[in-house]
Amino acid sequence: MLAFDDLLEHDRQTQALAQISGRLGWDQETMMPRGAAAQRGEEMAAIEGVLHARRVDPRVGDWLAAIDERALDDVARAKLRHIRRSFTRASKVPADLAAEIARVTSVSQGIWAQARAAEDFDGFAATLDHVLRLKREEAAAVAGAGDLYDAMLDDYEPGATGASLAAMFAALRPRLVALRERVLGATHQPEPLDHDFGEVPQLALSREMAQAFGYDFNRGRIDKAVHPFSSGSGADVRITTRTSARDPFNCIYSTIHEVGHAAYEQGIDPAHALTPLGQGVSMGVHESQSRIYENQIGRSRAFTRHLFDRMTHHFGDFGVADAEAFFGTVNRVNSGYIRTEADEVHYNLHILLRFDLERALVDGSLGVADLPDAWNARFAADFGVAVDKPSNGVLQDVHWSVGLFGYFPTYSLGNVYAGCLHESLRRAVPDLDDRLAQGDTGAATAWLHDNLQVFGGLREPRATIAHATGTQPTVEPLLKYLETKFTELYRL
Amino acid sequence: MLAFDDLLEHDRQTQALAQISGRLGWDQETMMPRGAAAQRGEEMAAIEGVLHARRVDPRVGDWLAAIDERALDDVARAKLRHIRRSFTRASKVPADLAAEIARVTSVSQGIWAQARAAEDFDGFAATLDHVLRLKREEAAAVAGAGDLYDAMLDDYEPGATGASLAAMFAALRPRLVALRERVLGATHQPEPLDHDFGEVPQLALSREMAQAFGYDFNRGRIDKAVHPFSSGSGADVRITTRTSARDPFNCIYSTIHEVGHAAYEQGIDPAHALTPLGQGVSMGVHESQSRIYENQIGRSRAFTRHLFDRMTHHFGDFGVADAEAFFGTVNRVNSGYIRTEADEVHYNLHILLRFDLERALVDGSLGVADLPDAWNARFAADFGVAVDKPSNGVLQDVHWSVGLFGYFPTYSLGNVYAGCLHESLRRAVPDLDDRLAQGDTGAATAWLHDNLQVFGGLREPRATIAHATGTQPTVEPLLKYLETKFTELYRL
Repeated sequence: MLAFDDLLEHDRQTQALAQISGRLGWDQETMMPRGAAAQRGEEMAAIEGVLHARRVDPRVGDWLAAIDERALDDVARAKLRHIRRSFTRASKVPADLAAEIARVTSVSQGIWAQARAAEDFDGFAATLDHVLRLKREEAAAVAGAGDLYDAMLDDYEPGATGASLAAMFAALRPRLVALRERVLGATHQPEPLDHDFGEVPQLALSREMAQAFGYDFNRGRIDKAVHPFSSGSGADVRITTRTSARDPFNCIYSTIHEVGHAAYEQGIDPAHALTPLGQGVSMGVHESQSRIYENQIGRSRAFTRHLFDRMTHHFGDFGVADAEAFFGTVNRVNSGYIRTEADEVHYNLHILLRFDLERALVDGSLGVADLPDAWNARFAADFGVAVDKPSNGVLQDVHWSVGLFGYFPTYSLGNVYAGCLHESLRRAVPDLDDRLAQGDTGAATAWLHDNLQVFGGLREPRATIAHATGTQPTVEPLLKYLETKFTELYRL
Repeated sequence: MLAFDDLLEHDRQTQALAQISGRLGWDQETMMPRGAAAQRGEEMAAIEGVLHARRVDPRVGDWLAAIDERALDDVARAKLRHIRRSFTRASKVPADLAAEIARVTSVSQGIWAQARAAEDFDGFAATLDHVLRLKREEAAAVAGAGDLYDAMLDDYEPGATGASLAAMFAALRPRLVALRERVLGATHQPEPLDHDFGEVPQLALSREMAQAFGYDFNRGRIDKAVHPFSSGSGADVRITTRTSARDPFNCIYSTIHEVGHAAYEQGIDPAHALTPLGQGVSMGVHESQSRIYENQIGRSRAFTRHLFDRMTHHFGDFGVADAEAFFGTVNRVNSGYIRTEADEVHYNLHILLRFDLERALVDGSLGVADLPDAWNARFAADFGVAVDKPSNGVLQDVHWSVGLFGYFPTYSLGNVYAGCLHESLRRAVPDLDDRLAQGDTGAATAWLHDNLQVFGGLREPRATIAHATGTQPTVEPLLKYLETKFTELYRL
């Protein structure tokens, strides 16, 4: 199988170069001197150009054609599947169009940021329309006679379709809306935090939490950044966090969330390193790891008991009476405009709104000019609040400005998958709460590692979840988890 | 001139990728998690492979052949000169040989480090012999009928030859040996430091010194590393430093030295950025900047007066009576085995020893097995001391283990060039000492910027110095500077 070996060797170099590109992204958000931005833009363009040329290299097509798949084992076939998908997709997009998208989206984010700061959607509308047209053109090149939105989704969640997600989300929405109404109308309401928390102890506690969730500092590091993220695969997986004097949960739960992403990347079988299997298989499956670490484990009654002790250790008396009150404070449900600040009950409602609107934008039934009204009407319907300004509404997220259509639903898909995994995890580790109350996440993270993380890209996204849980994923476990948790917490 | 534009565009991407490679090197020494070393090796190999392929791309040869140089201005011609040299050289080295050198030198450094730790030259001899044979083979491919050592030198100091450097160094050696003997025999001997210096104030003072010498923090940053270095060009030039509780000069003068390198890279005309002119023109000229910042300016009587004030501010009374005694302490001459710890009088003697030995290794008149004896005999002759162990002798430097033959002489060439520049600088800024005594290096750094740094790679190395000083470089100014300074300091 010379063709297979040559193909994998070519791909290995490409994977290594992609890791470099990721490291530059990390550097840009953490270490890069401010004055280096323009030069870095040229550096990034140069390496992206190299990556693109390697991905559409005609030799890849020749190798793919020469390989007899029947002679391959499952692992080799999985590698081929990824390479073929990437090559086919990249080859369908005309080089001119790819360059135009890169050019436009390199400036459109700045225009969005200005418009958001000025609360001026009109100042962004023409740019958004341009980006949308280019991304539709790209999707049309990829989809052929198929669905445009499905072609977009395929970039982030191979195998998912707009129709399947719409059906899934249709089952979520009414029960989430009903739950939020019951919760917000409850007599018992947990207290919010009201205290100042120092940056040094926040960062110390955040490192402690990373350690508690099994983050391997020998193959990673934690730095501060404006937006928390995880970056890199295999032996070099770095995360970032941030602090806020009034809200230490921002720091703590951002860290645990990113540790979930990082655990996936650090946990993949080293034999898959620098192969197409050496990274998380999709955005949705990735998000399932960050969410289950952050929410089902990190915000559980049991674990927050441990966290309350550690908060008291680091901050002294911070105005919350006991572990039970603290559990309520951590999980307080609160109508808000901003997706990234949303609690577990509201979060998916933010996503469902974006999913429906972007599908309508892509299929042309909604025009960019009508987007703010559509956003505000939907927000009022699902959240019971009128949007007061664009930065709290249609201008709040960066995604659309850089062409990320089809990305938002992977967040909710991650939550749905986390619900399924959590149900199986509870069955597999009956004394999980006793362990979590001691701050011991070892049994939970080991189960996730052994049943999901270690496989990397071996199976397709849904099959990855199904392999871990033994059954096809549905929304039911997530809904049951949320309804049980918040019914109890709000004494409904 | 379509061919010229295409060639420059190709080269611009290559320059940008080379900057990325440099940034990865920086990351490796400052930020990279320990466990990422093996993966980083693959990443570095991948980007070096891309760089090599771009440098020997046959289209570069076609473009070079198609360009009519007569139609070009001086700047364009200078760019062509660099590209042609790089292409010609890279094209002459067989790909197999280049790969073999990369493979061998990626492990030989580790073998050297082990041998040094074990004080066992024999454990390194076969590796050194292998590296030497490969580098001779490479040089033979480049040199054709020419001199092997000259071909090696050309990598670091285009235009220099072994013979011209030998003549230059022959004029240095006897006067340096004579000076060290007079200095070491002097009745008056400055006191060494004897005090503990905290790390935090050392780093604070080091930043202050970087600022005083004009380092632009908006286009750079300072971090700690095991070995101080400067990395990057244009808008992103980062330096590192280190601290030592008993020797704060290590931190302070390493920083000033690296700021000299960085000032060159930060000071190049932005119009040259990401072109072949957008970086320092040679190792020797680069070293002239670091040395003049560190020595002729930083260790001058005038500037040490200011530094004494700042040391007192940061450390309180540290056991040195006054600025005059401090000037002596900073410039104390001291026989020692280690090149990197040498004072201004001894430093070049360390280099001359290495230069003569490596030329003999390359021309075959000295075998690797006889190297330790040759080293020890020469050291005894020039330094008056017997080498006590290999780590203090032939095993002390990493250079030869990774194939850097022809690199050492650029350090002394840098000192010679610094001597020339210093003489001209003094003429151009008659009140320099008054300014330096106030900690004001502005006139000195502006002169170096305007007369040398801004031009980057526009002129060949010697011509770069000659343009700044108005005359061809010689050893005389350096010798006069050293003899005057140390005669006065040691009251000879």
